[in-house]
Amino acid sequence: MVTVRVLVSLKPSLLDSAGRTVTNSLKGLHFDEVHNARIGKTITLTMESYDEDRVKAMCEKLLANPVIEDYTIEVLP
Amino acid sequence: MVTVRVLVSLKPSLLDSAGRTVTNSLKGLHFDEVHNARIGKTITLTMESYDEDRVKAMCEKLLANPVIEDYTIEVLP
Repeated sequence: MVTVRVLVSLKPSLLDSAGRTVTNSLKGLHFDEVHNARIGKTITLTMESYDEDRVKAMCEKLLANPVIEDYTIEVLP
Repeated sequence: MVTVRVLVSLKPSLLDSAGRTVTNSLKGLHFDEVHNARIGKTITLTMESYDEDRVKAMCEKLLANPVIEDYTIEVLP
């Protein structure tokens, strides 16, 4: 079994309003060292076998919206 | 500037209904090698300085719900 982590995040040029809210809340809690926070999602897949092209196809078809989101694929040890 | 990634996921003992739906959808798209998918969230923090205890405090107070969620902290190179 292979564990694959797909990280999906909004493209950097887009305003991340949830991230903005988290940034402001952290500052409100006196965590002033935080400059910026951006929120994304993680999909952890447990797979029989790993094929990068097939995982990319999953991202393009279902896991991410390629118009507004970027994704990165990490195979966990 | 330090970039820190916080991964928040539901505790493994809890049913992840969104992940269940993704698993079923992937199978419907003939990605049969996927056994299981679980969904979490990622908070990417851009910080002036990194102190593990302070980031843990952020998680406990705001970023995660420690009753139902686990979190891991990764400092990105």
